[in-house]
Amino acid sequence: MFSNYLQNGIEAAKRVWSRIPNSDDSELDGAPLLSTTNANGVESLDYEVIENYAYREEQANRGKLYVGYHVAVKWFFALLIGICTGLAAVFINIVVENFAGWKFELTFNLIQKSYFAGIVLYVLINLALVFSSVYIVTQFAPAAAGSGIPEIKGYLNGIDIHGTLLFRTLIGKIFGSIGSVGGGLALGKEGPLVHTGACIASLLGQGGSTKYHLSSRWPQVFKSDRDRRDLVTCGCAAGVAAAFRAPVGGVLFALEEVTSWWRSQLMWRVFFTSAIVAVVVRTAMGWCKSGNCGHFGSGGFIIWDISGAQDDYSFRELLPMAVIGVIGGLLGALFNQLTLYVTYWRRNYLHKKGTRVKIIEACLISVITSVISFGLPLLRKCSPCPEADLDSGIECPRPPGMYGNYVNFYCGKDKEYNDLATLFFNTQDDAIRNLFSAKTVHEFSAQSLLTFLVMFYALAVITFGSAVPAGQFVPGIMIGSTYGRLVGMFVVNFYRKLNIEEGTYALLGAASFLGGSMRMTVSLCVIMVEITNNLKLLPLIMLVLLISKAVGDAFNEGLYEEQARLRGIPLLESRPKYEMRKMTAKEACGNQKVVSLPRIVKVADVVSILQSNKHNGFPVIDHTRNGETLVIGLVLRSHLLVLLQSKVDFEHIPFLNDSTGGSRQMRHNFNEFVKPVSSKGISIEDIHLTSDDLEMYIDLASFLNPSPYLVPEDMSLAKVYNLFRQLGLRHVFVVPRASQVIGLITRKDLLIEDNEDSSNVELRSTGVRFRRRNNRMFNRNADVERPLLNGLLS
Amino acid sequence: MFSNYLQNGIEAAKRVWSRIPNSDDSELDGAPLLSTTNANGVESLDYEVIENYAYREEQANRGKLYVGYHVAVKWFFALLIGICTGLAAVFINIVVENFAGWKFELTFNLIQKSYFAGIVLYVLINLALVFSSVYIVTQFAPAAAGSGIPEIKGYLNGIDIHGTLLFRTLIGKIFGSIGSVGGGLALGKEGPLVHTGACIASLLGQGGSTKYHLSSRWPQVFKSDRDRRDLVTCGCAAGVAAAFRAPVGGVLFALEEVTSWWRSQLMWRVFFTSAIVAVVVRTAMGWCKSGNCGHFGSGGFIIWDISGAQDDYSFRELLPMAVIGVIGGLLGALFNQLTLYVTYWRRNYLHKKGTRVKIIEACLISVITSVISFGLPLLRKCSPCPEADLDSGIECPRPPGMYGNYVNFYCGKDKEYNDLATLFFNTQDDAIRNLFSAKTVHEFSAQSLLTFLVMFYALAVITFGSAVPAGQFVPGIMIGSTYGRLVGMFVVNFYRKLNIEEGTYALLGAASFLGGSMRMTVSLCVIMVEITNNLKLLPLIMLVLLISKAVGDAFNEGLYEEQARLRGIPLLESRPKYEMRKMTAKEACGNQKVVSLPRIVKVADVVSILQSNKHNGFPVIDHTRNGETLVIGLVLRSHLLVLLQSKVDFEHIPFLNDSTGGSRQMRHNFNEFVKPVSSKGISIEDIHLTSDDLEMYIDLASFLNPSPYLVPEDMSLAKVYNLFRQLGLRHVFVVPRASQVIGLITRKDLLIEDNEDSSNVELRSTGVRFRRRNNRMFNRNADVERPLLNGLLS
Repeated sequence: MFSNYLQNGIEAAKRVWSRIPNSDDSELDGAPLLSTTNANGVESLDYEVIENYAYREEQANRGKLYVGYHVAVKWFFALLIGICTGLAAVFINIVVENFAGWKFELTFNLIQKSYFAGIVLYVLINLALVFSSVYIVTQFAPAAAGSGIPEIKGYLNGIDIHGTLLFRTLIGKIFGSIGSVGGGLALGKEGPLVHTGACIASLLGQGGSTKYHLSSRWPQVFKSDRDRRDLVTCGCAAGVAAAFRAPVGGVLFALEEVTSWWRSQLMWRVFFTSAIVAVVVRTAMGWCKSGNCGHFGSGGFIIWDISGAQDDYSFRELLPMAVIGVIGGLLGALFNQLTLYVTYWRRNYLHKKGTRVKIIEACLISVITSVISFGLPLLRKCSPCPEADLDSGIECPRPPGMYGNYVNFYCGKDKEYNDLATLFFNTQDDAIRNLFSAKTVHEFSAQSLLTFLVMFYALAVITFGSAVPAGQFVPGIMIGSTYGRLVGMFVVNFYRKLNIEEGTYALLGAASFLGGSMRMTVSLCVIMVEITNNLKLLPLIMLVLLISKAVGDAFNEGLYEEQARLRGIPLLESRPKYEMRKMTAKEACGNQKVVSLPRIVKVADVVSILQSNKHNGFPVIDHTRNGETLVIGLVLRSHLLVLLQSKVDFEHIPFLNDSTGGSRQMRHNFNEFVKPVSSKGISIEDIHLTSDDLEMYIDLASFLNPSPYLVPEDMSLAKVYNLFRQLGLRHVFVVPRASQVIGLITRKDLLIEDNEDSSNVELRSTGVRFRRRNNRMFNRNADVERPLLNGLLS
Repeated sequence: MFSNYLQNGIEAAKRVWSRIPNSDDSELDGAPLLSTTNANGVESLDYEVIENYAYREEQANRGKLYVGYHVAVKWFFALLIGICTGLAAVFINIVVENFAGWKFELTFNLIQKSYFAGIVLYVLINLALVFSSVYIVTQFAPAAAGSGIPEIKGYLNGIDIHGTLLFRTLIGKIFGSIGSVGGGLALGKEGPLVHTGACIASLLGQGGSTKYHLSSRWPQVFKSDRDRRDLVTCGCAAGVAAAFRAPVGGVLFALEEVTSWWRSQLMWRVFFTSAIVAVVVRTAMGWCKSGNCGHFGSGGFIIWDISGAQDDYSFRELLPMAVIGVIGGLLGALFNQLTLYVTYWRRNYLHKKGTRVKIIEACLISVITSVISFGLPLLRKCSPCPEADLDSGIECPRPPGMYGNYVNFYCGKDKEYNDLATLFFNTQDDAIRNLFSAKTVHEFSAQSLLTFLVMFYALAVITFGSAVPAGQFVPGIMIGSTYGRLVGMFVVNFYRKLNIEEGTYALLGAASFLGGSMRMTVSLCVIMVEITNNLKLLPLIMLVLLISKAVGDAFNEGLYEEQARLRGIPLLESRPKYEMRKMTAKEACGNQKVVSLPRIVKVADVVSILQSNKHNGFPVIDHTRNGETLVIGLVLRSHLLVLLQSKVDFEHIPFLNDSTGGSRQMRHNFNEFVKPVSSKGISIEDIHLTSDDLEMYIDLASFLNPSPYLVPEDMSLAKVYNLFRQLGLRHVFVVPRASQVIGLITRKDLLIEDNEDSSNVELRSTGVRFRRRNNRMFNRNADVERPLLNGLLS
């Protein structure tokens, strides 16, 4: 399957190319991105329920049983997402650890003979791994480059970027991140895992990939963007939970950083998914402990247990900790700014030159990284081992490549170790473990730490944005814990107290850099606590995060927001801009002419309208018998295209089709109107109509959304924004002031009792509930299934 | 100040009485609660921005500086809320611990001589404390009874229950919970602390209590319900953070359980508040360690460190843990149902008989509780002490009243202890500590635990709903940990493994009962982890919570939802009911006639309309020059009352007042229209108008909200519900279909760049931003400050 798939994919990649936001030709002419929305592959999602005839008919056919089925399926999918994401994370970790293990083993065997042969081998292995990653990504899954979190964030904000959630992207992400992480680049596998979780969720939700004929129809209960959004949220949380083994952190990450909408029922389901991930990962690791997984087991999942760190802290220590926060804010903001410039330059100058340049670039970065990480420790003088402390169980020197603090690398004497090699010439997980380690005062010299900080920071900046899957968590932790440990060394020297641990400062440094760059608060706090397994440092982490986020916010936005902006993902923030209070809805629409359709429309007119513009929704206007015009709803471009393609609704005469209601024969299944998730759907160019067809008519009444949300023309744009953003809409009608008010809806009109609860209505009716409404509703059920428009238009 | 205050308050209490939801006469006639909303003191809040002339003028006068000031004030208030709530929590804890300490000290000194004198003293002290609590609550702050969480939840859902956030309630809550917790009732101080935090936040936000002349005007920047909502959310989180010393748990509790709306900026501020609370509490406890706080220090803040508990668990243990989850779900659901019946009975039969009955009831419960907690251990045979284990540092027997596991109480021999007294005749904190304790296998007999479980469960049920401040957290933990420990004992006997700790099972039991009763997930999980300071049990707690919540949900709703319903708090859930999909907006309004006002209205008409109904908002209708009617906005009852009271806008002739715009002299300050938080505002009966006044006219144009949200008449009620709930509205207009569409607003119309960002617009304009809009906006700023209505009506 996979080989067939690869062939298929390489050809397909070229076609898909133009739709991916970071592809070559997307911004060639520098045209304003948003006015050519479709060309760029960025499209709005629609979280509004389209209440057309087909929807209403489906609703009417559903029983209470269906609701139960729907809920059960949702939970079943939460379970599936948890299991699949957990397994994907385990797979990635096992493979990466094994590659890294073999790499270091081979290299170390070789440097016993020749350091030159060692460096060549090391560079070549890394190059091969990185090349495989960049080749997969560029040729086959361009949307898999980068961390993917900005795209997922965009998706959950209501923007569909084609390619983000494809099966191809999932495969590219998994194998690409194996290559890039295994190849020793300055990036992590955590962001890609979030994207992986989201892809898995989306693919499960649509029942597989339609393109590769892997789909099944039965699980397609997730027909609306709204349901898919919930699944993707679960997938995100599962990804974080799997990446950090932090189930609560995963839930909070999804909540704080990624989603734009949230409800407490969803929290409960997301929590379940995270718990499943934790169980899956724990089970797999238990299985690996018995040696089934090769090199995996010594490193792997990032859990840096610092339970040996200091429990208490004096108030005097708060000052250096605040300093760490400030440094984190500054370096984090600088990181965001530098990556923004680098990415900008890359997109507009370098990557325009084609795929080949991207591959060369990634390979070049790999060689530079390998040479630096091998070469710099060679230049460093070795330090003598500290006096053996038998109690602590720390051995010095230790053969490198294994977990351990003191590595003998290019040292003359036996009892010496190379502190820079401990950091640079090691897997990132082990390097972080060394930086966090307690009871190892004076292990690192300030000079080594500074060298490492500068070099690694530079490497992380240039690596960011190359065409490989790349997370920013682990590099951020590396950078942060390095300067944190530096501050800790200073504190140890200055205060001369024994119970100060440098490892604690390293942890705070890591938190501060992530806070300064990503600007998360609660979720980062919980993730840091969960990965270090030490709850006592929680108040200190909170303090450091508050400071670093505040400092960072003074300079720029968070990493993901900056990148989303650069990638042309138009995120809507939760609050309207200040200027919007002074604008009205009418002003926001500008003088743009509204293209509307009549209810009975000629096919030729539909075709010409669809060809002449790119709008995704069209108001439908009808005339009452008195001759007044009346807006009867909104019809979507995608629905019009379905109608044009199927042709079954074409009529020869422009008569009102069956306005007496009730018995109307529906020629379409609701499923036909369901938007496909991972493909662009049909385009007007793909539809071929005969000239006879063009002379026919369609009655749009059954296919339109009869009640889109609307605002009066002089409502302030801030209020429109709230409506749009809170409800996740795609179109809002701006209409003139109404001539009358038919009714006022207040809270009491919305308090309707479930019918089932009538068993204990005796007790409840004394409280808030009242029965009048129930009765009214029963009387009404009889005539409610008729389409609403008929009453209006007769 | 305080004595003056008390006098003042007792008189005031009688007047306020009728407005408080759980007062005597509120539901005498069993009338449907919602149709007489005002009479019951329940009123909707309005989270919509009222864009009237005064608001627009204020907005126009504000500069960017004002926005900065506003943000700074918000952060300053977050700080203040944190400090005040932390101090309140410290105060309550110190006082409660000291009362409890004295009580046990005195009693133990006495029972050396006579057990009978001991029980009399014990009962009397408890009675005195409980009496003080119930007296304060019934005479002075009736809204302080109960936990207060349902009311706060209602407030944040958009329902204002008068009395909930008064200064008087704050005082009643603090001193009432000191009495009730100190008096040894089966209730906790955690729920009341949440309410305390919310009261503090609300009072700070309005600048003190206007009634008691403690208010200052300067901090009144929080003029809308929306800003106050944010403050109260901060207060809730601060309350939980202070109660459990669980800052992250506090944020999550506010998020998951209490609020209905959330944005990530708010999360950041709430997080800050929680961190401040943690710092304040830690500082205060550090100060107390040096012996400044009397008996406080040995108990106090609930932190049950179970770091000695088992770290690992076998898969075989998952079955008994799942059983704990099921038991928790069943007992929790039963607890909710029983308390519902008891509360219902109390409200409708017992409490109708007046304040005196409430006081007698609480005193009776106190006596019963005291007698049972003293008497039952007397009947219990003492057990011999386990063999001394010098390493563990556990002393047996220990003098009771101190922290310790083995208490000698009515035991014949020296080397014996009474296991029931360890639980019953102890403060709740110490009892829980004993139940959670590790390395104490076979300390409790199954018989004692069962006795305690049954008795305490019964006491908790009858105590719930009496007129004292009462939290359900600590009783829930007591109940849950008792049956958890029972299961743990069974597991230890059955599996015969050494590393199984009964304390771990007790913790899981506590989590399961809280999950089964309150139905929280993530927040409860984090709170349990934070109070036990043991992160390794997280997956087990998640498992148990998932099971217990699922089991509980099969029977009824969560405790707070059930209580909110019984108290007549009409919460709107986040999702519309299924039936709403089949109803339209017009049907929901019913045949109720809409009462509307003309733009130029006679004062007499306003008065008669206000007197004839209880509506809170009225549509305003005007005629254009062509004679068409036009809905020009919504005017609020409260604003009309302000106009009637001030009389400055009365005109002798019904002329359109200044329709050329621009230079209109505003006679009102925006502040006059700000709704007071803690009082009911003015009523139509309070306003006295002369017959000359009644003949005059008012032009409402400047005072109405020109653009309330509106829906077309045949929109399904589910969509209306989403609009109403997501935006936190109070009124929605149902209007006929529009005759034309002026424009369509889509995502691109809402992407407006901040003007300040133009410094690096060079870089950014290549991405998502486009400059056209900026230019358009600048051109428009000039004519935007005119009231919008003028253009329309000319």
